[in-house]
Amino acid sequence: MGGFITFEGIEGSGKSTHMGLLALHLKDAKIPAVITQEPSGTAIGRKIGDILFNRSHQGMFAETELLLFCAARAQHVREIILPALEADKYVVCDRFSDATFAYQACGRGLDAAFIKTMNDYCAPGLKPDLTLLFDLQVETGLQRAAGRDAKLADPAAADRFEREKIDFHHRVRDGYERLRQAEPERFRVIDASRTVELVAADVRRLVMDFIKNGKRSGR
Amino acid sequence: MGGFITFEGIEGSGKSTHMGLLALHLKDAKIPAVITQEPSGTAIGRKIGDILFNRSHQGMFAETELLLFCAARAQHVREIILPALEADKYVVCDRFSDATFAYQACGRGLDAAFIKTMNDYCAPGLKPDLTLLFDLQVETGLQRAAGRDAKLADPAAADRFEREKIDFHHRVRDGYERLRQAEPERFRVIDASRTVELVAADVRRLVMDFIKNGKRSGR
Repeated sequence: MGGFITFEGIEGSGKSTHMGLLALHLKDAKIPAVITQEPSGTAIGRKIGDILFNRSHQGMFAETELLLFCAARAQHVREIILPALEADKYVVCDRFSDATFAYQACGRGLDAAFIKTMNDYCAPGLKPDLTLLFDLQVETGLQRAAGRDAKLADPAAADRFEREKIDFHHRVRDGYERLRQAEPERFRVIDASRTVELVAADVRRLVMDFIKNGKRSGR
Repeated sequence: MGGFITFEGIEGSGKSTHMGLLALHLKDAKIPAVITQEPSGTAIGRKIGDILFNRSHQGMFAETELLLFCAARAQHVREIILPALEADKYVVCDRFSDATFAYQACGRGLDAAFIKTMNDYCAPGLKPDLTLLFDLQVETGLQRAAGRDAKLADPAAADRFEREKIDFHHRVRDGYERLRQAEPERFRVIDASRTVELVAADVRRLVMDFIKNGKRSGR
């Protein structure tokens, strides 16, 4: 039947690591799945991402940022996600519309109603069936992200978002929590402060339960 | 007092040439003016333009295209246009919101009401005071654009828009004509089929008349 699963969470919450581990598990289990991400899930989206994360673009206005993420989503939904769902595959996507609400409405302070209009335009009729929210302390997440950047042997590797003040990241985390409270059925919170092994086991269990029960929301 | 002047028209209508000639004239006349263009009037906008015009991006969806132009406009208005107008300068801009209506609504068939919403979001409260519409036959414009590309010594230089079928360009031209009919006071049509000298004289006269009379619309 297929289904649409998204991973959400603040910087350094481990989404990308667990996306990779889940991809291996689904492959082993021979479950037809497309593993993708926003904004860089398409060739055009990767170029948009280069603009968005470039740390020399400190002068980017919040409205520009919003519209660039939306442009990448409009492309991603039509080029990758909808065709995969129509082919009854599972789509697992690192960040989606919830991130726009958490980052651009709560983090940047843009109008939430307008962001809803934009999300509906970019992804008409499409909503995740299951969203895993990787939750952890903002301070822990940022330390992890900094450690990852240091491993890249570039102490200045932090992107435009990682360089935001800590208040910004608190507002993003609070934004995700509000989304979860509004739709408790769709969200599953994962305590991302634990070891990779424990978190990976949770992710696997939640995703496999979803696949077995095959509940697809209104799409 | 300053004011906001836009140049509009189909491919090959000579806007860029006349933008350059007008810039020289305004400089000679010591009129404080910012000469700019969309989408590439900012550093971020130039990178967005690279994505938009890249002829390898044939798979770009119309919605993606719309949102990329809007992202460039959101940045351009806030970084360049509004600060210049607040400093009482004249801003002359090659393409603006009318182009989005002509190309993305009439050319691509996207919803005109949504495009109006987007234009209002990108450029809140900002409307051109004077718009020069460079009008000529679609066939003539495309021949001129092809000649320009040939001069670049790259016979395949035509960008993603120039490569559209001729019907697309007819719809764009018709779209501009509808805009003109809806706001005859703002628009001045320039017969762009004539020589560069004759067109340049018209442009200069219309712009200098506007500057002398200093009529700024509601902004």
